[in-house]
Amino acid sequence: MSDKPTPLSGFPELLPEQRAVERRVIASLSRSFELHGFTNIETRAVEPLDRLAKGGEVDKEIYALRRLQADEGAGDAGIGLHFDLTVPFARYVLEHSGKLEFPFRRFQIQPAWRGERPQEGRYRQFTQADIDVVGRDELPFHHDVEVVRVMLEALDALPLPDLSFQVNNRKLIQGFYRGLGIPDVTAAIRQIDKLDKQPADAVKALLVSEAGATEAQADRCLELATIRVPDTSFVERVRALGVEDELLETGLAELAAVVAGCQDAVNGHVRLEANLRIARGLDYYTGTVLEVFMAGYERLKSVGGGGRYDALASDGRTTYPGVGVSFGVSRALIPLFADGVLAPGPKVPSQVLVALVDEESRPASDAVATALRRRGIATEVAASAQRFGKQIRYAERRGIPYVWFPDSHEVKDIRSGDQVAADADSWTPATEEIVQ
Amino acid sequence: MSDKPTPLSGFPELLPEQRAVERRVIASLSRSFELHGFTNIETRAVEPLDRLAKGGEVDKEIYALRRLQADEGAGDAGIGLHFDLTVPFARYVLEHSGKLEFPFRRFQIQPAWRGERPQEGRYRQFTQADIDVVGRDELPFHHDVEVVRVMLEALDALPLPDLSFQVNNRKLIQGFYRGLGIPDVTAAIRQIDKLDKQPADAVKALLVSEAGATEAQADRCLELATIRVPDTSFVERVRALGVEDELLETGLAELAAVVAGCQDAVNGHVRLEANLRIARGLDYYTGTVLEVFMAGYERLKSVGGGGRYDALASDGRTTYPGVGVSFGVSRALIPLFADGVLAPGPKVPSQVLVALVDEESRPASDAVATALRRRGIATEVAASAQRFGKQIRYAERRGIPYVWFPDSHEVKDIRSGDQVAADADSWTPATEEIVQ
Repeated sequence: MSDKPTPLSGFPELLPEQRAVERRVIASLSRSFELHGFTNIETRAVEPLDRLAKGGEVDKEIYALRRLQADEGAGDAGIGLHFDLTVPFARYVLEHSGKLEFPFRRFQIQPAWRGERPQEGRYRQFTQADIDVVGRDELPFHHDVEVVRVMLEALDALPLPDLSFQVNNRKLIQGFYRGLGIPDVTAAIRQIDKLDKQPADAVKALLVSEAGATEAQADRCLELATIRVPDTSFVERVRALGVEDELLETGLAELAAVVAGCQDAVNGHVRLEANLRIARGLDYYTGTVLEVFMAGYERLKSVGGGGRYDALASDGRTTYPGVGVSFGVSRALIPLFADGVLAPGPKVPSQVLVALVDEESRPASDAVATALRRRGIATEVAASAQRFGKQIRYAERRGIPYVWFPDSHEVKDIRSGDQVAADADSWTPATEEIVQ
Repeated sequence: MSDKPTPLSGFPELLPEQRAVERRVIASLSRSFELHGFTNIETRAVEPLDRLAKGGEVDKEIYALRRLQADEGAGDAGIGLHFDLTVPFARYVLEHSGKLEFPFRRFQIQPAWRGERPQEGRYRQFTQADIDVVGRDELPFHHDVEVVRVMLEALDALPLPDLSFQVNNRKLIQGFYRGLGIPDVTAAIRQIDKLDKQPADAVKALLVSEAGATEAQADRCLELATIRVPDTSFVERVRALGVEDELLETGLAELAAVVAGCQDAVNGHVRLEANLRIARGLDYYTGTVLEVFMAGYERLKSVGGGGRYDALASDGRTTYPGVGVSFGVSRALIPLFADGVLAPGPKVPSQVLVALVDEESRPASDAVATALRRRGIATEVAASAQRFGKQIRYAERRGIPYVWFPDSHEVKDIRSGDQVAADADSWTPATEEIVQ
């Protein structure tokens, strides 16, 4: 390998000091999810192509695999890389259903792949963090509140810009359109979903031409879509529009329960709003739907989202309803690194560099390191016996806060310059960054 | 998705209770590596095909990627999934060399893919844990001792059967063959490497026919290969064979340093031996070579291995020597799960199930859960207000040790049956399995 490699577009990689931050984010998310009883799984990276391409997902730009050494034409392995964590999770639930306990709470933090055109926040390989609760045959509504709360708490603990959870309910929209008498409810949802890209007038025209709405009906649809409040006052505002429908009432009650149930988890850093414009395309959502936006990064569109699906998976006899939320780890972090909003972490985990007097005394330096590590203090020994000034600069370049001098039994905090006598069997760094 | 999926051969997946063990193993390895100053990186899953197929690695059964939706013929993306973590790491070092500090200690725990025929311990997707130290232009020998020690300590902390590190040195073998006057030293190493598959007589014949050795020379090669000792006594045994060569002397000194330098890290659970038969194929190794075997699982061949390579990577101007050891996480764990040698972990992380008196009192149960979680105790609330006996069995099936009754303010240890009055703001489980 004698050439200088160039980056692959759409496949960003983190430097060690950025990866340190990503690891902390993933550890924090995992801890939050586990505190709520969510168990971790990983699925294989590949699925059969017919499963990936099912349900109109062909637009996800699937990467198919073929074995390079196989005979021409025989190399197609019939499998491809998963493009999200929902399709493999649904398959995992079906395949292992006999060995799982329901309701099954799981979290999954893995890469996914899409061969689409790379742009800021959109990569060909990206890491997602998903939580879902899945039931067998039925899944009580209170799990909708649960998953939204868990993700709120989990994201609240991260060092991110302010986040906004925008929540809606498909039953609310569908019931409203139905009660209003729109001929093609599905087409209407599809048009309303374009409101973030097109002006209201254009969407109104589409509601008339594509969903068969009258001008008056289209106006009411647009009115509904403008309702956006941080509390349950949306209920009265919807009722004031004068539409009556049973499904609408269910949707209003469910959305109110989510908004009310998350009030005490909301703070200055993470907000939650009822936003009656959110539809999340057509997908498989059947109730709660939400998207998560990051302040100052609205151009990324949502950095997370999810909702309720009454048939996450089915094997013909049993149906598995679910509700989940996904957070785009790469989509959120990589732009923040690029903009310097998220500060890099340490280049190395070492808290202490043990200086080396000369190569012959390496065992003495190693002994200090061993004693420190035994007490959970990450330590490395200098690579070579340069002048102490050079060894200190070596520590500085790596962000190692302490240098230990085994000859004088002293340790120097190179940030403050303080140097004190120390015993490797009892000394503890002032910082709390001890490896757990 | 209405069909019952079947497993994909070569792509094993873990149940939640097995994944819990794998996560602990990975956390333990990571902690060990970080204590020694190794920093974590992840590389993208793909590399350009010309980089993957370089250096005669075409036998690794590379999976190439093509975009499913691209025009016929235009879909080949020119990239493939990496088949190990060494090729991508070498590329990462070259690509990011200007932003890394050398010597660069890194660990990497990721899946790799090979389209080979699946068998026990060999999978098409498998997770490896690699550590390497890489220098720029030069890398002092003491790092050989360091990486072997670090992996010894890291594997010693895992709940595995006994492990054996079998160490050798390529300079020792090469120098010995050269000093002996074997015409084709490289061919001789290739034949000796077959000793684990073929009888000594057959290998002897190959040494004569393929490496140009005389019968007497071949006998000496085989004698060298029988030396296997847990200490530095191999030095005298090799000298007794009467071969003199400068490279041999360097190899003896290096191997003796590794064996001596690891003596105090060796214990009943992890042994280290000098085994002069180990060659590790032809690869790129230039000094220390080792393989790791697991007691009772010798049929898996090695579960780990590595060594020194004087040119891990080069961009034409700068060469990056390295030394590393790899541990096959999937290769070791999956057979142990299959055989019941490694006990599964908990099905869920929850320590406490808060019982539900009725659906109306869910907020009271939620409040108990919130108070417990605030103090790091993983907690879930019962999914539905069944009879308490059913709720207790729900906890039992998941392996949740405690059930909390919010109406009577009591908590029951369902293993012992003990039930005591408790306050959610102060009670702590007896077990130490609090989420950190």
